[in-house]
Amino acid sequence: MTALIGTGPAAATAGDVLSSYLHAQATEFLRSLRLHGESGSDAEDATEAVRLLRRSARRIAGTLHVYRPLTDVVWTDQLRAELIWLSGTLGREHAYAARLARLRGALHRLSGSDGAEPPGGGLTVGAARAGALLERQLTLARTRAHSAALQALGSARFHAVADSVAVLASEVPLDPAARELLAHEALARLAEQTNRRLADAVEALPLAQAGRPYNAEALVHGLAASSAADAPPAEERQDAPWHHVRRLVRLRRYAQEVLDEQGQTETDPSLSVRLLSAGQALDRHRDAAEAAAAAASAARTPRIAPATAYALGILHADQRHEVESSRYAFGRVWQRLTAAP
Amino acid sequence: MTALIGTGPAAATAGDVLSSYLHAQATEFLRSLRLHGESGSDAEDATEAVRLLRRSARRIAGTLHVYRPLTDVVWTDQLRAELIWLSGTLGREHAYAARLARLRGALHRLSGSDGAEPPGGGLTVGAARAGALLERQLTLARTRAHSAALQALGSARFHAVADSVAVLASEVPLDPAARELLAHEALARLAEQTNRRLADAVEALPLAQAGRPYNAEALVHGLAASSAADAPPAEERQDAPWHHVRRLVRLRRYAQEVLDEQGQTETDPSLSVRLLSAGQALDRHRDAAEAAAAAASAARTPRIAPATAYALGILHADQRHEVESSRYAFGRVWQRLTAAP
Repeated sequence: MTALIGTGPAAATAGDVLSSYLHAQATEFLRSLRLHGESGSDAEDATEAVRLLRRSARRIAGTLHVYRPLTDVVWTDQLRAELIWLSGTLGREHAYAARLARLRGALHRLSGSDGAEPPGGGLTVGAARAGALLERQLTLARTRAHSAALQALGSARFHAVADSVAVLASEVPLDPAARELLAHEALARLAEQTNRRLADAVEALPLAQAGRPYNAEALVHGLAASSAADAPPAEERQDAPWHHVRRLVRLRRYAQEVLDEQGQTETDPSLSVRLLSAGQALDRHRDAAEAAAAAASAARTPRIAPATAYALGILHADQRHEVESSRYAFGRVWQRLTAAP
Repeated sequence: MTALIGTGPAAATAGDVLSSYLHAQATEFLRSLRLHGESGSDAEDATEAVRLLRRSARRIAGTLHVYRPLTDVVWTDQLRAELIWLSGTLGREHAYAARLARLRGALHRLSGSDGAEPPGGGLTVGAARAGALLERQLTLARTRAHSAALQALGSARFHAVADSVAVLASEVPLDPAARELLAHEALARLAEQTNRRLADAVEALPLAQAGRPYNAEALVHGLAASSAADAPPAEERQDAPWHHVRRLVRLRRYAQEVLDEQGQTETDPSLSVRLLSAGQALDRHRDAAEAAAAAASAARTPRIAPATAYALGILHADQRHEVESSRYAFGRVWQRLTAAP
């Protein structure tokens, strides 16, 4: 790998910059893996190591996606698919834990238990039971996800991924042309392609509607009967374009990290901040949508009490309200993003 | 009664203007009463006649409240109390009908049944059952309110009210001083007192919070256990100051109608429009709050299915969302009202 030290930013090749970024991320990946191995019975350390592992895995996969033409695509396409499998498998445990925390928080918020209510107030029987039901269901899901993650980390499939990442850490398989192209031209061009895909996907969102506060759009299918057993629920269909944009914002953020590696001062520093805000609004959108779905799914548990079902209905609507609120927030961040010079 | 014709607006006395307005409203009241008597078996005509009756009753009571010092208070205080009883009793039937229509509309909106969903979609079993339950409960309440209204209209108590209104229609019992005071001074001063009461009541509202979209405040007690059997539910306590402002906005509107009677061009024509918008936002606030309470109350029906309770929970949360939305809307109207020159 060509060391960047001593090479002026303007003269750096696309291969140099991309290699430098991937090298750093691959090193992080391997370090997190070592941390995980050393964490032993410390669950907190293990969780943190897995979080860091996913963090690098997502960045490597994202970067290989955006800057694909600069790489040895046969080799990197395969690694990318494996990294997506890995971060999906490793992310599930955290997702269930976060979902439970979100729903538990909502139950307490909806009980006005902020200390302001008179003594004797608190959760209704229904809310307490709904909380216990969600606790049971999501803890079970989390435990299963934990086992699946451990199994994945011990598998031959994972060891092959780690071997490939070790290759990245020493020598990134590049397309020969990448060593000739100037970084500030080739990288910017590919980042711009992601930018365009993102802009097109945002264009397809109902932003005018989402920008009117209290449009009540996100709950519009809250009581819709599913049209067919094999069709996704109407709410899922409504959310899909937003999830798509969320993934593209993330890609764009990783693309930007590579560009920032060039160290060119012409980059607008507020761009990264705004991309991060946009991503956070859409992360909240996804989290709320999944929490709403978990409440709806818990309400389908056989033989629950009506009071429990009632509380789950309120919880579902509350989280869809959060979905709507996140769309509104994203719309405002996006306005600032595109209005930026 | 002094005729206003031929009297220049600047020279008109407070007694003149107030009498003229009350005379017109009392005449309307008696005309609506006659219409109701003539409506026979035509339910639509009878409903419209009752609506007009309530309309005049509210205006007479409101005007007697704001301009009380200009009247013979012993006589008008008694009439005012009776008019409040009357419009309350007559308004209930309409309120239940409107509540049912609002909840039915919400159920359909929440089922996405706007023709956009694929065929086969529609209300879930729970939503359909919740709709049937609300239909049953609110229709029963409405029928009872209808009987109570008919009974009231046939009572000796009502005939005494009608006799008093007939007095207003011929000669308004005024305080002797009202015949000396200039309208544009005395009326404006009393309207200004109502204005101040309104401003103080709005000051006490959490408008800064309500002005942030998606503050999720209105649902904050959606799952709160009631603290004591005799205490009003937390949501009712939270809504009370808004209902108080709603009543003051209405008083202020009626006070303005009397001022407009003077025909002075200095009145800002947009003021009435804005007061109307403010009132409409707060009417929506009340309607949504009462619909939410009706959904919560239906959910307490013994032996309902969990799916029904779930749908009622969603409905409750949706209507509390509307409550929040109305507060936001009121905040914006109020900002324009106070920013007006």
